[in-house]
Amino acid sequence: MTITYVDNNATTRVAPEVYQAMGPYFTDDYFNPSSMYEPAKRIARAIAESRQRIARLFGLHDDREILFTGCATESDNAAIFGAARANPHRRHIITTTVEHPAVLDVCKDFERNGYDVTFLGVDRNGNLDIGEFVRALRPDTLLVTIMHANNETGVVFPIEQLSRLTKETDPTILFHTDATQSVGKAPLDLPRQFPHVDMLSFSGHKFHAPKGVGGLYVKRGTPCRPLLIGGHQEDGRRAGTENVPYIVGMACAMQVAADCYDDEDTRVRRLRDRLETAIEAQVPYVIVNGKDAPRLPNTLSICCYSVEGEAILAMLDSDGICASSGSACTSGSLEASHVLRAMKVPVHAAHGSVRFSFSRYNTDQDVDRIVEAFPAVIANLRKISPLWDSQKNEPRISERVVA
Amino acid sequence: MTITYVDNNATTRVAPEVYQAMGPYFTDDYFNPSSMYEPAKRIARAIAESRQRIARLFGLHDDREILFTGCATESDNAAIFGAARANPHRRHIITTTVEHPAVLDVCKDFERNGYDVTFLGVDRNGNLDIGEFVRALRPDTLLVTIMHANNETGVVFPIEQLSRLTKETDPTILFHTDATQSVGKAPLDLPRQFPHVDMLSFSGHKFHAPKGVGGLYVKRGTPCRPLLIGGHQEDGRRAGTENVPYIVGMACAMQVAADCYDDEDTRVRRLRDRLETAIEAQVPYVIVNGKDAPRLPNTLSICCYSVEGEAILAMLDSDGICASSGSACTSGSLEASHVLRAMKVPVHAAHGSVRFSFSRYNTDQDVDRIVEAFPAVIANLRKISPLWDSQKNEPRISERVVA
Repeated sequence: MTITYVDNNATTRVAPEVYQAMGPYFTDDYFNPSSMYEPAKRIARAIAESRQRIARLFGLHDDREILFTGCATESDNAAIFGAARANPHRRHIITTTVEHPAVLDVCKDFERNGYDVTFLGVDRNGNLDIGEFVRALRPDTLLVTIMHANNETGVVFPIEQLSRLTKETDPTILFHTDATQSVGKAPLDLPRQFPHVDMLSFSGHKFHAPKGVGGLYVKRGTPCRPLLIGGHQEDGRRAGTENVPYIVGMACAMQVAADCYDDEDTRVRRLRDRLETAIEAQVPYVIVNGKDAPRLPNTLSICCYSVEGEAILAMLDSDGICASSGSACTSGSLEASHVLRAMKVPVHAAHGSVRFSFSRYNTDQDVDRIVEAFPAVIANLRKISPLWDSQKNEPRISERVVA
Repeated sequence: MTITYVDNNATTRVAPEVYQAMGPYFTDDYFNPSSMYEPAKRIARAIAESRQRIARLFGLHDDREILFTGCATESDNAAIFGAARANPHRRHIITTTVEHPAVLDVCKDFERNGYDVTFLGVDRNGNLDIGEFVRALRPDTLLVTIMHANNETGVVFPIEQLSRLTKETDPTILFHTDATQSVGKAPLDLPRQFPHVDMLSFSGHKFHAPKGVGGLYVKRGTPCRPLLIGGHQEDGRRAGTENVPYIVGMACAMQVAADCYDDEDTRVRRLRDRLETAIEAQVPYVIVNGKDAPRLPNTLSICCYSVEGEAILAMLDSDGICASSGSACTSGSLEASHVLRAMKVPVHAAHGSVRFSFSRYNTDQDVDRIVEAFPAVIANLRKISPLWDSQKNEPRISERVVA
């Protein structure tokens, strides 16, 4: 069966260019980049070139601002723990209720360990209240950690504004953003777009590099201590033998992604919009999450009243369509997504969430296949839903849908 | 130029079987193992099978005792930080002065943060004093973390005995061993050989899997909290999207290594022994580090009086021979190795250290090439050494060499 893969916010196919670029570093150029002999120096140069390439794509002049890590989760942990280790006397952190668990659960851990954590909520569109944010900043605030784009809904937070307001209030408060879902999907010139951001996490496998490599931008001068302690790698800031093939692969992947930003913003966006329009036209009682907020061009998150997301996914799966109910990192849980609950999506809709996330490898045929399958899936599930008959006539549902 | 690679304790060539096993998981079976659709479940099964395979090779019945990590440094950090987070009231750690930086520097960090750390020294052969070890155990000891085999000298510590003595003293003291250099070089049946070890670190790239994947054995019931916090991966004990290709590759590599343990213990050992004998016969004023201690079969660490290790390596490099002066993780440093200093190797010899470390890919021709090149390299360097004339007549040198 042909697979229609529309779960690119969960992970992506490794690009053939990336696979090819990594190849030599497994069985031929396998040397340890820390070694002193010439073949190893060649490997060290490959890492240096990858770092420069990524730095350039972020608009950076100093490539030492880019650290390589094992994944975005490590990058997020490194940013938060690193900031705390470097600044032990500040004990207040600001984050949001819709972060990825790699930030949210770390913040909860800090809270359990005596830190004061402000978890900012969002409105129905997934937007933050800027006034509330500014009021949350305190003299003892260590760190603000707020994601760039939400993995479930694609809603984009105004990181430039939030980081500027942070530094205007107190330049010594550190600002970290988890940009795992945005990096590789749209150009990001850090000095120009995010001049006030101190740290930014990203992950290779969200833009067609393999799973198992990430990065952390740490602006020069940012007080941040290492998470992984040991060898002198990464200028003493991240110990552990470098994953050479994946580092080379991630740099290649980011370059290819940069070459495709126009495609992402036009063709991929049109695929998403076409699916959104078709679903809204053909499936009643559907909420498009974050519809009125700035959103990633590739992400469509919807909630269908009176059906279970898991059941929808299983039916789509049997049609060869790979989508998700939200985050892969929390899948298997029976609770409705914490992001949708934070957005106050009515509970009977929040359980029926489906996320479609596109990549440059998707085509109009993929949208056709989903448009063909999806309305019937929902109709059939609603036929057997014990909730449907009672819920569809509740006035607040139609109001919500119309709104 | 043909490369003679004898730096396998630094890193290894990815085995062709491993490269082949990983292949499909990049561009075809790239799905996120946490996702719900059938193609993703296939990936989750591949991870489960890899975990079972590795567990079996360690003689374990419960494969949940194996965690996948991003590298041995992460495993070591996870073991030490994890033990401390789970047992915050115990503030004493026992380790040795010859650990890898991934353990040693973490312990020093704990010391800076108010922990009491006992750093046990070694004798001239690299052995620990067992009586001193037992006396170091205290009622507030949180953790013993002592490596299995030393990365620089190959000296093997009596982990079974040390862990047994630990548990006889106090079963609640945790015992961790960094087995990065031994796993994949000799069979290790954990329940039979190391029944008292609670945690054990290992690294794929030391046995022909790629750099960027490691593992941590955590015995069932061991109180240990996660280092990387976030998603539910690895049963909630290590967050971060799984590096599927490398996990599959590491399991394959460990299986192939197990099939080669006899070769490692016979043919590879003979290569090492032949080189050792030839160097001792042909190069005067050389110390074989750890000669009288139990040692890995693949490792030869020597110290040459009155020459600089870096110079030796550069000359060998120009002959296409890739060796190291000790640990790749500390190379570039001008200080003599902390391991050799701990073994009280005379300073004029410690600076002339060279490590040859073999793998199953080495042949008799490799030894021939080194035996042909090495004595001339040392003789030539000594000719231009300002130290040689004065040092070679110092009586303590000849004594030491004779001893």
